[in-house]
Amino acid sequence: MKKIAVLGAGSWGTALSMVLADNGYAVSLWSHRKEQAEEILNQHTNQKYLPDVTLPSHIQGTNELSEALDQASAILLVVPAKAMRSVLEQIKDQLKQPMLFIHGVKGIEPGSFKRMSEVIEEEIPASLRTAVVVLSGPSHAEEVSLRHPTTVAVASSDLEAARKAQDLFFNHYFRVYTNEDTVGVEIGGALKNIIALGAGMLDGLGYGDNAKAALITRGLAEISRLGTKMGAHPLTFIGLTGMGDLIVTCTSVHSRNWRAGNMLGKGKKLDAVLQQMGMVVEGVRTAEAAYALAQKMKIEMPITTAIYQVLFDGKHPKTAVDELMDRDKKDEIAPLTHSLAEQIAREK
Amino acid sequence: MKKIAVLGAGSWGTALSMVLADNGYAVSLWSHRKEQAEEILNQHTNQKYLPDVTLPSHIQGTNELSEALDQASAILLVVPAKAMRSVLEQIKDQLKQPMLFIHGVKGIEPGSFKRMSEVIEEEIPASLRTAVVVLSGPSHAEEVSLRHPTTVAVASSDLEAARKAQDLFFNHYFRVYTNEDTVGVEIGGALKNIIALGAGMLDGLGYGDNAKAALITRGLAEISRLGTKMGAHPLTFIGLTGMGDLIVTCTSVHSRNWRAGNMLGKGKKLDAVLQQMGMVVEGVRTAEAAYALAQKMKIEMPITTAIYQVLFDGKHPKTAVDELMDRDKKDEIAPLTHSLAEQIAREK
Repeated sequence: MKKIAVLGAGSWGTALSMVLADNGYAVSLWSHRKEQAEEILNQHTNQKYLPDVTLPSHIQGTNELSEALDQASAILLVVPAKAMRSVLEQIKDQLKQPMLFIHGVKGIEPGSFKRMSEVIEEEIPASLRTAVVVLSGPSHAEEVSLRHPTTVAVASSDLEAARKAQDLFFNHYFRVYTNEDTVGVEIGGALKNIIALGAGMLDGLGYGDNAKAALITRGLAEISRLGTKMGAHPLTFIGLTGMGDLIVTCTSVHSRNWRAGNMLGKGKKLDAVLQQMGMVVEGVRTAEAAYALAQKMKIEMPITTAIYQVLFDGKHPKTAVDELMDRDKKDEIAPLTHSLAEQIAREK
Repeated sequence: MKKIAVLGAGSWGTALSMVLADNGYAVSLWSHRKEQAEEILNQHTNQKYLPDVTLPSHIQGTNELSEALDQASAILLVVPAKAMRSVLEQIKDQLKQPMLFIHGVKGIEPGSFKRMSEVIEEEIPASLRTAVVVLSGPSHAEEVSLRHPTTVAVASSDLEAARKAQDLFFNHYFRVYTNEDTVGVEIGGALKNIIALGAGMLDGLGYGDNAKAALITRGLAEISRLGTKMGAHPLTFIGLTGMGDLIVTCTSVHSRNWRAGNMLGKGKKLDAVLQQMGMVVEGVRTAEAAYALAQKMKIEMPITTAIYQVLFDGKHPKTAVDELMDRDKKDEIAPLTHSLAEQIAREK
């Protein structure tokens, strides 16, 4: 039985471990918390993150990175974005041969604004990795753990590596599509959280489905403008990791970003919202990063700018919506056609 | 004050009349039911379709097509798809000069499978129309009547005509984008109802957000494959009238198609569902049309095919989902890139 090392035992790391176990792999699931690793090993549960789920017995919990990596044929990283670099620093001296690196992290590194695959490539020498693959898509971990139908994409500039990852995870309830666009998949997964903040704000203001559909559609258009400029393929944003994930995040009231946005829409200030949430709201940091990038790259991102101004400049959400609605009259797809034609010309 | 004739006083025709009235136009709103026309004229209400809304006084109800058309500078058609041709037959002899035709109808003609702009072009001689424009997008009429922020697209092969329609409707709560792709806008508006049936089925089966996001994303991919083959621009399907409208229709439990799909997902047969609904479920007829078109044009539409088989071949929805999940491993965007490259080459 081949072994996979899964680093990070939150709800998503645990759910992906279950998929791998269902597919016949032995999984060594590493947690940085000793008690949690022991609970997984001995009781086959992970109560904090996936309550009421029994884990297959060939998922073994461990608190030791060396044990997780020993004899593993691939590494799946599912740690918080801000912890990625330090985990990589801990494992790189323990690698004995080049490994396939897969990550399932939606976020960008705070401060550096780097994508997760960039962080992996910086920290792990090329001689110790066969390829880097990102796995992303519209996927509540709880639903995967119930084996409900789910689709995701695995992306890598190395298509063969993406196919290997597809083979690891693909089964009758977990349908995996390959994609060669790492940048687009990573940008879509991170920037959706800004739009989820906006969706919460609209609901907080008492607006309806029309406004939210406009936000999601036009929000995706500007994410794809930025992403394309960063080297992504524009069509990735129509796919599972762009549009698909955005829909789930913006229409689920369980999303942390939606809840924070909702309080902002009702008139609370950011400080008070963050204090009340008591946890990280990814979209806030991502909005700051995307706003900075849009300024630097001279890309029109009116929705991101409006959300940034609500978060950091004290603009009232209703004023921000009014200003968005009152902009110049526009054509819907002409600007996108232009960037696509450029992209396709580059590919030739 | 310029006058616009609005034909059809359902919720959407009435809400669009309010937008025009807010923009300073006199509106003659025609209903085929005399009592309704009189209620609009005398009480400034339309209780059946937009309860609790007071209509601006420069919306005048009428039951006479000749009165509605007299002195009008444009015609907005908002009648059921199946009634479009007979309404056009009634008005064509009363037109005195060429008019701008705009329609806000989401559906295709039963039997002929024709788009609404095709029906208009067939029935109204070219000498009596300056252009045909379609108005579509994610827009519950109730929210528009409350003046909540809403975005739509107006499409015409004649861009100047689309800009004229944009000018008629654009205001601070109703943001209108132009688009030159009539085919794409009409196909998106009609075919979304098939996917809404599927969304209801998934909920009826007890599946969650992951499955629904997959359905919407991959459903849009196949709608855009069919639409592109029919001459639509692939990017229209990422816009307000494609993705935007699809999101609203699939996530709102008020949708008739969703409710029908939900009963099918719970194991009811189509006959029983239609009997219980007691009204037209557009998606059922559209699924039949799209399935026939896909067969004829040799386009892979696995989701539409699965929904067709549940509706007409007695396939159990769970079997249909299992079969969709078990298909061959695929790449996510490569097939789309191919059709886009073709499209852009054609445009050059």
